[in-house]
Amino acid sequence: MTSLRILKVGSNILNNDAAFTQLKQKFVSWSVPKILVHGGGQAASELLKKLNITPEMYNGRRITDDATLEVVTMVYAGLLNKKIVAQLQALGCNALGLSGADLNSIRAQKRIIDAVDFGWAGDITTINESMLSTILALQITPVFCAITHDGNGQLLNTNADTIAASLASVLAKKYEVQLHYCFDRKGVLLDAKDDDSLISLLNKEQYLNYKAEGIIAGGMLPKLSTAFDALSQGVAEVHLSGVENLGEGTRLIV
Amino acid sequence: MTSLRILKVGSNILNNDAAFTQLKQKFVSWSVPKILVHGGGQAASELLKKLNITPEMYNGRRITDDATLEVVTMVYAGLLNKKIVAQLQALGCNALGLSGADLNSIRAQKRIIDAVDFGWAGDITTINESMLSTILALQITPVFCAITHDGNGQLLNTNADTIAASLASVLAKKYEVQLHYCFDRKGVLLDAKDDDSLISLLNKEQYLNYKAEGIIAGGMLPKLSTAFDALSQGVAEVHLSGVENLGEGTRLIV
Repeated sequence: MTSLRILKVGSNILNNDAAFTQLKQKFVSWSVPKILVHGGGQAASELLKKLNITPEMYNGRRITDDATLEVVTMVYAGLLNKKIVAQLQALGCNALGLSGADLNSIRAQKRIIDAVDFGWAGDITTINESMLSTILALQITPVFCAITHDGNGQLLNTNADTIAASLASVLAKKYEVQLHYCFDRKGVLLDAKDDDSLISLLNKEQYLNYKAEGIIAGGMLPKLSTAFDALSQGVAEVHLSGVENLGEGTRLIV
Repeated sequence: MTSLRILKVGSNILNNDAAFTQLKQKFVSWSVPKILVHGGGQAASELLKKLNITPEMYNGRRITDDATLEVVTMVYAGLLNKKIVAQLQALGCNALGLSGADLNSIRAQKRIIDAVDFGWAGDITTINESMLSTILALQITPVFCAITHDGNGQLLNTNADTIAASLASVLAKKYEVQLHYCFDRKGVLLDAKDDDSLISLLNKEQYLNYKAEGIIAGGMLPKLSTAFDALSQGVAEVHLSGVENLGEGTRLIV
């Protein structure tokens, strides 16, 4: 099986020039087929603020109204995606920026939970594995932003962690996939303030225990839940790490 | 030689839902390889205004400063490009949104004229003909926005009419290219206020005479100059038209 590496990079790395420069160099040096997935929530929040757009919230979750969808599309698919693509091209990597609409690569459906309309938030339904395999075989490196479409002309806002995990799961049928989540900590920590408390190996049972005890909490929970799903669907390796220890950090095991 | 059609669509069509819907249907019905190139100056101007960004001008030409480049990248490559791609996908067309950075498809260099620094405006230097041919052979339809890159990680703002003409000229070596400029008039008019004054056939000499007499003026001049250049470089057909009379309108001849 051909190897494939998928790297998800979060806002806090995108906003740190030194860290992102180092990460791009490491990413470009990978000589196997690879995909980059990026977030951009911080930059989107800044533009929403400048435009005086206050997204509605429901139980702490942002509702993606029309104006918010326009802003995230501009920031994720426009500003950030094209900057990253231009920078990767400068490093000799044949990058291709994609939303899920491009090449019909990722379809999603509008999220409705318990009759609450979350606006233009989309949950992934289909990944175009054959098109992506064709692109990867051409030694092209897809760079995904967190925008998808519903196949009927509507763009949707989809979580970037989930995009990375879904790409990994679907492409695991054809490739030996390594999935890397890179952020501003060394990995999953027992104490969020102490990088030395890194958990090197984490299995699902331990994760659920740490979750029940409140030791792992907050934004790490949906990330780990999605990452464990990818592992159970045949992804060969899943790592969560910082830039320095990319490829190590916390490795998830069954 | 395989046929290829390149359609440039301007802001005034993009902003007219009925007209753009009709144009997309016509475009999708073309059964030959095809490329869409879109502008978006009006939408960019609106966002610049909302953000209180006033671009500097020099002799009536906008200087693309840092803030302006961010806005045009967001609007052209993000908002407009992804909307158009999603809409074409909904019509069954396998659209792929591209800036010049994606696939290193269009390189440009920063424009400096008579020692005036126009900021991040870029003049095209190289078009990646082999990559575009590969993409077209996969029955993928590129959708270009008016953003290019310099190969060193810098995005640049490049005129969409020029992108369309340059793509046509370079791809004319391999394809029999038809180039169509579509806007909100029936074509080149003797009287800008009278659609019945359409010039059906226009050669270069006539164009230069009309220009000297002031009959053809304003934004039509750079568009026609670029279009005649494409014709002289082997593009098989060049038309300027509205949506209704797409493929007819004004045909340029040598």
